[in-house]
Amino acid sequence: MTYCLAINVNEGLVLCTDSRTNAGTDNVSVYSKMHNFVWPGERFFSLLSAGNLATTQAVVKKLNSDIAAALTPNLLSVNNMQEAADYLGMISTQVQKLHSTRDTGTTNFEATFIFAGQIAGQAPEVFMVYPQGNYIHESNEHPFLQIGEIKYGKPILDRVIKRDVFLERAARCALVSMNSTIRSNVTVGPPVELLIYERDSLTAGRRIYFNEDDPFARQLSEKWNEGLLMALQNLPRFDWEDANKDVGGQHRVVNFPSG
Amino acid sequence: MTYCLAINVNEGLVLCTDSRTNAGTDNVSVYSKMHNFVWPGERFFSLLSAGNLATTQAVVKKLNSDIAAALTPNLLSVNNMQEAADYLGMISTQVQKLHSTRDTGTTNFEATFIFAGQIAGQAPEVFMVYPQGNYIHESNEHPFLQIGEIKYGKPILDRVIKRDVFLERAARCALVSMNSTIRSNVTVGPPVELLIYERDSLTAGRRIYFNEDDPFARQLSEKWNEGLLMALQNLPRFDWEDANKDVGGQHRVVNFPSG
Repeated sequence: MTYCLAINVNEGLVLCTDSRTNAGTDNVSVYSKMHNFVWPGERFFSLLSAGNLATTQAVVKKLNSDIAAALTPNLLSVNNMQEAADYLGMISTQVQKLHSTRDTGTTNFEATFIFAGQIAGQAPEVFMVYPQGNYIHESNEHPFLQIGEIKYGKPILDRVIKRDVFLERAARCALVSMNSTIRSNVTVGPPVELLIYERDSLTAGRRIYFNEDDPFARQLSEKWNEGLLMALQNLPRFDWEDANKDVGGQHRVVNFPSG
Repeated sequence: MTYCLAINVNEGLVLCTDSRTNAGTDNVSVYSKMHNFVWPGERFFSLLSAGNLATTQAVVKKLNSDIAAALTPNLLSVNNMQEAADYLGMISTQVQKLHSTRDTGTTNFEATFIFAGQIAGQAPEVFMVYPQGNYIHESNEHPFLQIGEIKYGKPILDRVIKRDVFLERAARCALVSMNSTIRSNVTVGPPVELLIYERDSLTAGRRIYFNEDDPFARQLSEKWNEGLLMALQNLPRFDWEDANKDVGGQHRVVNFPSG
């Protein structure tokens, strides 16, 4: 499985992915699930993918080869993010149909994408493109989109993410969401890729690659654990409870950068 | 859907359930999913259920009528928790088979149970009984079991719950786990039922019913939100960040006792 997440706040975009892929439980690999397309000063796109790896790789190849061959539409020719998402949906369904036609069994060739970006003079936007090729975008009420193993890491996003959250806080929140997912589900795993894109920068943004033993990721995990235990500590007591019982550090702080 | 949770710590048992049932999205009701069987000083059982409501109701009826009719096995005759779980598995599969035989369609009659309890002179135990009638119990490494919508509320349990956690802290943790699930998934809803059973008490335990507007549940939610924001606040900053930017209460504290 996979966990990918995109957040769109007033200050910019945060994109975060795990890197674990598997074809059966005994064929587990590491593949980047984040593909960026950048024309500095003009346009920035980031594609996050979940699902059939052959499909997502073929889609990325096609996105690149359409630009090289100047076929239209392509990521450089589209006039806005909606056109780009539509173009992506078209390619994705074409690839799936091709492989389905060749297939003699009932293989699942489906892939789901998060597609985020900004075109000069327009607002940053985030879309989720379904295997069927249609798509939705985030909203003011729900300024994030997730694909893959979305449930473990959703509560913290539901509680924290609003449009007015600082960009770096949104990024920390994304890392916490990813960390919780990695810890609770073995099909999601490091390295974690994080991209922080400042609105209107029209650059490649800050892309950070967190290995399993990355010191920053480890420190973040430890601090988050400490913070959760503190939060638990500060919850109201039941009326029959001895106020002096559940105090202090009952628990060890355990490292869990990688689950 | 449903979310039920049982925790077995050294000091006793914590059981927690939501109360939302639905047969289609336009037929949503409130039913208790916690059924307790208590013989003070002798034995205490608590049954939490997820799945087909007709099946779970029929199972509870049968558990009670077997006792009244002194049919063996019954909950009073079983010699240990394993026998009780096996008996429950047998009844559950019998009920499902009966309804499947009558069915002219492909209705899903499955139900999954958490079965917790203590028999005098023995240790408290918790089982999960699958629709197939087989069962697993919790372990020292994993002293909790969940059924239904288990993913949203799992990270906090994975981080906190160990055998040596105080009973009331485990209960607070269960409420947080439930609260996060209710907030992130509309198919899980209040009222929330919580039962705190002290080891060797062989009583009905403390059973608390939290309505949507319960002041304690509301306070717990607010304090948890505050604590999470504080935890987020205390996370390490990225090296390029202005240390003075993301400080103080950027976010309002929002009440969310019921999602």
